[in-house]
Amino acid sequence: MRALRLHGPRDVRLDDIPEPALRPGTVKIRVEWAGICGSDLHQYSHPAFPPGYVHPVLGEQGPFVLGHEFSGRVTEVADDVDGIEAGALVAVEPLVSDGTCPACLRGEYNLCDSFGFIGLMGGGGGMSEYVVVPARNAHVMPDGSSAETAALVEPLTVAWHAVRRSGLADGGTALVVGGGPIGLGLLLAAKAHGARFVAVSEVSEARKQLARDLGADLVLDPTQEDVVARIRDEVPGGVDASYEASGAGKPAVDALLGSLRKGGHAVTVAAGRPAEFDPNQLMLTEVNYTGSFGYNGPDFPAVIAAIHDGRLNPDGLVSDRIALEDAPAKGYAELADNAGGHVKILVHP
Amino acid sequence: MRALRLHGPRDVRLDDIPEPALRPGTVKIRVEWAGICGSDLHQYSHPAFPPGYVHPVLGEQGPFVLGHEFSGRVTEVADDVDGIEAGALVAVEPLVSDGTCPACLRGEYNLCDSFGFIGLMGGGGGMSEYVVVPARNAHVMPDGSSAETAALVEPLTVAWHAVRRSGLADGGTALVVGGGPIGLGLLLAAKAHGARFVAVSEVSEARKQLARDLGADLVLDPTQEDVVARIRDEVPGGVDASYEASGAGKPAVDALLGSLRKGGHAVTVAAGRPAEFDPNQLMLTEVNYTGSFGYNGPDFPAVIAAIHDGRLNPDGLVSDRIALEDAPAKGYAELADNAGGHVKILVHP
Repeated sequence: MRALRLHGPRDVRLDDIPEPALRPGTVKIRVEWAGICGSDLHQYSHPAFPPGYVHPVLGEQGPFVLGHEFSGRVTEVADDVDGIEAGALVAVEPLVSDGTCPACLRGEYNLCDSFGFIGLMGGGGGMSEYVVVPARNAHVMPDGSSAETAALVEPLTVAWHAVRRSGLADGGTALVVGGGPIGLGLLLAAKAHGARFVAVSEVSEARKQLARDLGADLVLDPTQEDVVARIRDEVPGGVDASYEASGAGKPAVDALLGSLRKGGHAVTVAAGRPAEFDPNQLMLTEVNYTGSFGYNGPDFPAVIAAIHDGRLNPDGLVSDRIALEDAPAKGYAELADNAGGHVKILVHP
Repeated sequence: MRALRLHGPRDVRLDDIPEPALRPGTVKIRVEWAGICGSDLHQYSHPAFPPGYVHPVLGEQGPFVLGHEFSGRVTEVADDVDGIEAGALVAVEPLVSDGTCPACLRGEYNLCDSFGFIGLMGGGGGMSEYVVVPARNAHVMPDGSSAETAALVEPLTVAWHAVRRSGLADGGTALVVGGGPIGLGLLLAAKAHGARFVAVSEVSEARKQLARDLGADLVLDPTQEDVVARIRDEVPGGVDASYEASGAGKPAVDALLGSLRKGGHAVTVAAGRPAEFDPNQLMLTEVNYTGSFGYNGPDFPAVIAAIHDGRLNPDGLVSDRIALEDAPAKGYAELADNAGGHVKILVHP
């Protein structure tokens, strides 16, 4: 079958590889759509896994198939698997873990020291015709769901997990720093949690407009405006939650902490640069500053339910749809060079 | 009556001032013991309140009576006050707030923008013969309590609130950075919450020994040892909670975050210097980093109960007992110049 594999820095090739075989506990999926993610691009430009690397759970050597955000139709189901039938549309949860560590036993499998991602570190991936994944990683979409939307569930779940960690409640207020795919997902997830006010801080004109289209109550340009002052004008005392999805370092940290109300929750979702900050700001305000990594137990089902009942509408996040053979140039290279001009590019194998 | 008041930098005077009068909703207290706190010393060396300053809730001009950690016997009770009788031994909760802001209405009155402390910003103080406080600020000690222990409730409650905020559970593990009065209180409060392992990092020999005497499972000297490596040797994967009570800036922040398990809780309790840190450390580990300021609703009663039932034994925290007239030299000046040689100095008016 055809599959995109990463062979080295900026070296994505359309390879012909064997179709993966069903194993106990798995399902085989014909991929419908696969998205390209910021962590793919980081990996694309600076591959992190040395030759010979074998992930402890996924257990295979590279070159690895790309694509960890994907949907597809189940074509085969192992005899020992219940609850999924051939023909089902599924969104794949690519996170794997060892299942036995203290974090896994707490249900926080995203914090497993042996965490890994199908489509980044082995286990096949969405940038191929077929993939075989453990049945527990395949979430059946409700009747009437589109395969394109199902491919957006993974990045939306990253955002959902961050919003869940922030404790944002119905009627709450929030700031999202950065309006890329995750930032816009945070906007949608915050709204789906019932937020009455969500501001987005972003520099790209295209993304600012998209944030407005997706329901942002205020869109700020940090190069033109004092984000903290504007937020505090709009929400006296500060917002309940702030999310960092820009990776911009100190200016982002300052906006994140400065915009919060006392006792509010700041969550960093994007990899960022080290930054100076004042611990007294945490002490005097009892602000809670944390990070969000991936997702766990309740998140995929929650996002699928929110999409199904209309609380979360990701239409508009997809900026382009391309074929597998075009993905090296029009997907990976284009996004690595011009991320701000796009949101989510989906690939159809 | 005699009262110690702060007239300027390092200028504490024993003044003769009028006895305060009972008002509706208050009780009058004859002070038994009052402690000197780090924030008193900061105020002593660098008074923060300009001439003419009036706290919005306490409503008076300085010079202010000192002493916000104190116990005493109730001598008079306003007619409209129930639940406190003359003769009762009380520990005073000095924190006041406006009672009407969103934080107050949530019960987080320590986060009120109009918070204040009796004994720092007006309202009398423990460094005097008598004080009149709102009845809700006077917590009756159980029969058999000592007045000296009752004067320690306030600083212990600062530590208790921080441990409560960290979610430390029975059988948990913790690191305390700094072994001063608050750090040792954190050790005691963590043990009272059922922690099975509490390490203390401290440089002063006297305080290191006291930490051992008070039940620390491991005492580390950050000038001699790699605190993070030692903690991770003792508790593979890292501790559940870490508390910063040293004000040491970046080395403290590094120890605080580096020693935690994934998903663990770091709490800064001490004023510290700005420090560089890496937000990715929060993202990849989902560590929760927050601060703790004062205390609120359940904290005073919880500490009093823990002392009463023996889970929390603060004997040993008091390093000296002095008279009011000796406090300017043997209390404030001595502690400002040589804090590491003492833990808690109590003053008897």
